[in-house]
Amino acid sequence: MTASTLVGIQSMPGLVILYASIVKKKWAVNSAFMALYAFAVVLICWVLLCYRMAFGDELLPFLGERVATEPLYPMATLVYFQFNFAAITLILLPGSVLGRMNIRAWMSFAPLWLIFSYTVGACSFWGGGFIYRWGAINYSGGYMIHLSSGVSGLTAAYWVGPSIKSDRERFIPNNILLILTGAGLLGIEWSGFNGGAPYAASIDSSIAVLNTNVSAATSFLVWTCLDVVFFGKPSVIGVVHGMITGLACIMPGACLLQSWATIIIGMLAGSVPWASMMIIHKKCTWLQKVDDALGVFHTHAVAGLMGGLLMGLLAEPHLCRLILPKDTRCALYGGNGGVQLAKQIVAALFVIGWNVTSTLILLMIRLCIPLRMPDNQLEIGDDSVHGEEAYTIWGDGEQYDQRKHGWHAMEVTSPLS
Amino acid sequence: MTASTLVGIQSMPGLVILYASIVKKKWAVNSAFMALYAFAVVLICWVLLCYRMAFGDELLPFLGERVATEPLYPMATLVYFQFNFAAITLILLPGSVLGRMNIRAWMSFAPLWLIFSYTVGACSFWGGGFIYRWGAINYSGGYMIHLSSGVSGLTAAYWVGPSIKSDRERFIPNNILLILTGAGLLGIEWSGFNGGAPYAASIDSSIAVLNTNVSAATSFLVWTCLDVVFFGKPSVIGVVHGMITGLACIMPGACLLQSWATIIIGMLAGSVPWASMMIIHKKCTWLQKVDDALGVFHTHAVAGLMGGLLMGLLAEPHLCRLILPKDTRCALYGGNGGVQLAKQIVAALFVIGWNVTSTLILLMIRLCIPLRMPDNQLEIGDDSVHGEEAYTIWGDGEQYDQRKHGWHAMEVTSPLS
Amino acid sequence: MTASTLVGIQSMPGLVILYASIVKKKWAVNSAFMALYAFAVVLICWVLLCYRMAFGDELLPFLGERVATEPLYPMATLVYFQFNFAAITLILLPGSVLGRMNIRAWMSFAPLWLIFSYTVGACSFWGGGFIYRWGAINYSGGYMIHLSSGVSGLTAAYWVGPSIKSDRERFIPNNILLILTGAGLLGIEWSGFNGGAPYAASIDSSIAVLNTNVSAATSFLVWTCLDVVFFGKPSVIGVVHGMITGLACIMPGACLLQSWATIIIGMLAGSVPWASMMIIHKKCTWLQKVDDALGVFHTHAVAGLMGGLLMGLLAEPHLCRLILPKDTRCALYGGNGGVQLAKQIVAALFVIGWNVTSTLILLMIRLCIPLRMPDNQLEIGDDSVHGEEAYTIWGDGEQYDQRKHGWHAMEVTSPLS
Repeated sequence: MTASTLVGIQSMPGLVILYASIVKKKWAVNSAFMALYAFAVVLICWVLLCYRMAFGDELLPFLGERVATEPLYPMATLVYFQFNFAAITLILLPGSVLGRMNIRAWMSFAPLWLIFSYTVGACSFWGGGFIYRWGAINYSGGYMIHLSSGVSGLTAAYWVGPSIKSDRERFIPNNILLILTGAGLLGIEWSGFNGGAPYAASIDSSIAVLNTNVSAATSFLVWTCLDVVFFGKPSVIGVVHGMITGLACIMPGACLLQSWATIIIGMLAGSVPWASMMIIHKKCTWLQKVDDALGVFHTHAVAGLMGGLLMGLLAEPHLCRLILPKDTRCALYGGNGGVQLAKQIVAALFVIGWNVTSTLILLMIRLCIPLRMPDNQLEIGDDSVHGEEAYTIWGDGEQYDQRKHGWHAMEVTSPLS
Repeated sequence: MTASTLVGIQSMPGLVILYASIVKKKWAVNSAFMALYAFAVVLICWVLLCYRMAFGDELLPFLGERVATEPLYPMATLVYFQFNFAAITLILLPGSVLGRMNIRAWMSFAPLWLIFSYTVGACSFWGGGFIYRWGAINYSGGYMIHLSSGVSGLTAAYWVGPSIKSDRERFIPNNILLILTGAGLLGIEWSGFNGGAPYAASIDSSIAVLNTNVSAATSFLVWTCLDVVFFGKPSVIGVVHGMITGLACIMPGACLLQSWATIIIGMLAGSVPWASMMIIHKKCTWLQKVDDALGVFHTHAVAGLMGGLLMGLLAEPHLCRLILPKDTRCALYGGNGGVQLAKQIVAALFVIGWNVTSTLILLMIRLCIPLRMPDNQLEIGDDSVHGEEAYTIWGDGEQYDQRKHGWHAMEVTSPLS
Repeated sequence: MTASTLVGIQSMPGLVILYASIVKKKWAVNSAFMALYAFAVVLICWVLLCYRMAFGDELLPFLGERVATEPLYPMATLVYFQFNFAAITLILLPGSVLGRMNIRAWMSFAPLWLIFSYTVGACSFWGGGFIYRWGAINYSGGYMIHLSSGVSGLTAAYWVGPSIKSDRERFIPNNILLILTGAGLLGIEWSGFNGGAPYAASIDSSIAVLNTNVSAATSFLVWTCLDVVFFGKPSVIGVVHGMITGLACIMPGACLLQSWATIIIGMLAGSVPWASMMIIHKKCTWLQKVDDALGVFHTHAVAGLMGGLLMGLLAEPHLCRLILPKDTRCALYGGNGGVQLAKQIVAALFVIGWNVTSTLILLMIRLCIPLRMPDNQLEIGDDSVHGEEAYTIWGDGEQYDQRKHGWHAMEVTSPLS
């Protein structure tokens, strides 16, 4: 129960603040609104419909018999705990389309994606679905959460199209202090995720919390070092990226690892997504054209995929036996360990493949609502979409106004010239 | 214990930040100070005096015998848990008088109101007082908290008098991102309130947490829809209002409701206070003259009252039997259900009536200290009252200065003209 | 486990935000980075090395036999809980050198100080070291944490040297609202510290949480009163200082005090450091020359020392018997009480003395890396060190630029003149 509340803090206010402060000033309110809306709509859908779909019997003819593993927990706690996983997945997703997606299109997309994409995935991975019974490692759902939000995010970014030119050229975070507030809440609360997932304050939950933190710290230090070596300066935004990839990468198996394996995962989490974001992204014109606003693909899909595969290599057999439903032996520990790695790959392909549904949902919505904002809204931002701006701290509590608060406006509109 | 800490986050920093960021820039520091002061003074008074009054034997000759229901909890935990309820009530109250109440008048009012108004209410509702024994539904005290802060807030606003003209005309929140930070901490921590109130992680606490979230989400979506339909744009401030009314409305009986009843409550919470704020408030010149700065009356008194009455209609008998001290049957479930509704109405009238004490306290204070700031302080704001301003981010870390950072100042003071 | 997570929130984001917002705008990013880096590096060092040193057997020949008091807790939980204490000590420390220490020097200093200074202290106080067995009162480590961060901070400030003149003359907090966010997370989470230290939600943890809050509230009210009496205006920064000294002062013995003793401690915590900061600091030119940026010496070393000594006077014998390893009788309770006071003094002298190691570490680092930033970096701040600035909220999401957003720039660069 405490764990779910901590996870709740992660989505709201954690991610809401992070998104609102990491975008360009003119999109702060819009980004916050997208995340807030997702949180609320997921809750309603989840309670009324999806929880029953993912963990109930309705989808079972298709996906297999349900294994009841949590009989001790009151139903409502479980619904709430699982809701938080659904919420965070759907809130991560818009990171790819911030600052250009039509707000009404998002309002339609969010519940549809939850019902047709997330729920099926959750059912196969947790609710007794075939991947669960088959034995893929997906502790606390991390594999699925990060991979599906990253892949669906990229898909959505593709169909919505890129931002306007001035935003693509300069998309500077508006408030670094608030980014750290959001990321801090996000990071620490991840402990709730990983610690709460075994549904009890047992030994594996302690290991999970410690490993999660170690991975995040290692990854952040590696990312910072790479920043210093290649760009000369340690960037705080880089710290946040590194921390998030470290968290995403450890999540599929936080309680299955020994300390040395955790450090290895942290080091890879700080370097592979860094390379993918800083090198591959800059060389690949297709990725640039898609314009994944916050790089959700790199920080979540790449990191989550890598984490899931590494579990197939590094998970420690004794810890696996304590936690997983079936006996598992990973590649590095010999025997038929390669089988586990293969299972992880297949599970990833299933998630990636299933997220093609996003495309269908988006195309369906496009029939009724344009996916992209009209150009004049794209130019102005929040004030045009919501009638509000994030900061009204100039003069006697006013919005920033070129004509009143900016000097260079003089050259344009001054009565003096 | 965890629950109380979560409730503590709600008041500080939750409400402190929310108030500081939802007011006009020039009152940010002052609003934060009022809330901080209330938090500290409540704690001291509560530990030294009020807890004993509300939950002890002193008032009993007047209010009846105490029912000891929590023998398992260490005294100190209980004191701290109950303190948080007292604190939040007193911190909600200044929402009505932000940006004009004399700080010294507030410093006197806060402890007096706690002792003479809140404590008596708390005693009747919780500590074995007559309303408790009589059987009014007031789960986790929500009925009393919201109703008394809303009514006393309005009363205080009346006696202090309205803000100056320029503030009444434009009272724009200074920092929407921080509002969301505050509201997020506030909203999630409400789980601590409702989940912690049964003093155990039992089934009713799980239901309470889930229902609280569902009600807040429904209410926020309804409020947003009304905003879109009537004003054309979804407002983020509206989201925050909707969330708060949803929380306030469910609070009197979060664990007594079935899902469908929770959704109904959420829908009413998102629409009735909306109407009261957007329609009735604009038509009623008396309400405008009183100038309830943040609309605490609408978001708390109206929502709380509605919630309390709806409990009399909708509370589910089986859940009531699990939790309430006496057998209860609500109106919609037939039998002599109307009796329960009548009890809720009488309880509300008692709270509203008792808050007339606020008037007496304020009149008493007015004999020594003016309730309102002098006009020159009202013009300048924080810098005059506290010698500090919220943001010093211009130039080399300076406050905003018309002559240095504002263009239109040129027309007034420029050496060029 | 929950307690450790709460303590984690305290460091990150609590202290990170507090530091980033309490400094001058141009150092916000740098301050946050220093704290973030400390958090990550402590975690790695702690897991790999220091935990074993402080609580294991390696140092025992030097320091005595280990007393195993926590057999019930999974190892990983304990490591994580103790890590948080280490982290907060090291994150408090840079408060003295913000805005001038070379970032690479800090990156070397942090792990070295942890290993050679903190670990030895932790070992003597907790891990069965000689001070622990001897019976000095140091509940939840507060005595050591605050005293060592305060003393080492001052030492570091001395060796790094003062800030540049323009920063020393005006070092105004850039964002009071965020200070309150940080301080609020910090303050409430202190409950996790003190409540979690007895490793169980028992009666002493309830007393600890309540006393912690009462002390902070009393101290803040006293500090505010002194501000009003001597400077005429209640300052919100003063509120934050008062709260922190109240927390630091109660920490060495939060669960050993009766209510009246807590109030006395709160009153002293709000007045003695106030005097030390406002009066002694201004008279003592040596302290001014050292330039302890945030006054960590006053708010932590002075408050922590005072708290530790007061425990020797005020701790209640019955509560001591419940918690401490040996029978303890404090000065005010007669008998051979003076002995306990003497032990507290000796423990303090040991901590102060041991922190001389900071000097050695700093001198060693100075051989390779200058401790201070070069002057041009000191002039510019964040943008020069990290290539980022905290706020980019001017114009179309730009940094503040004198030539564009400041009026007085006209006199220097305007094409009109």
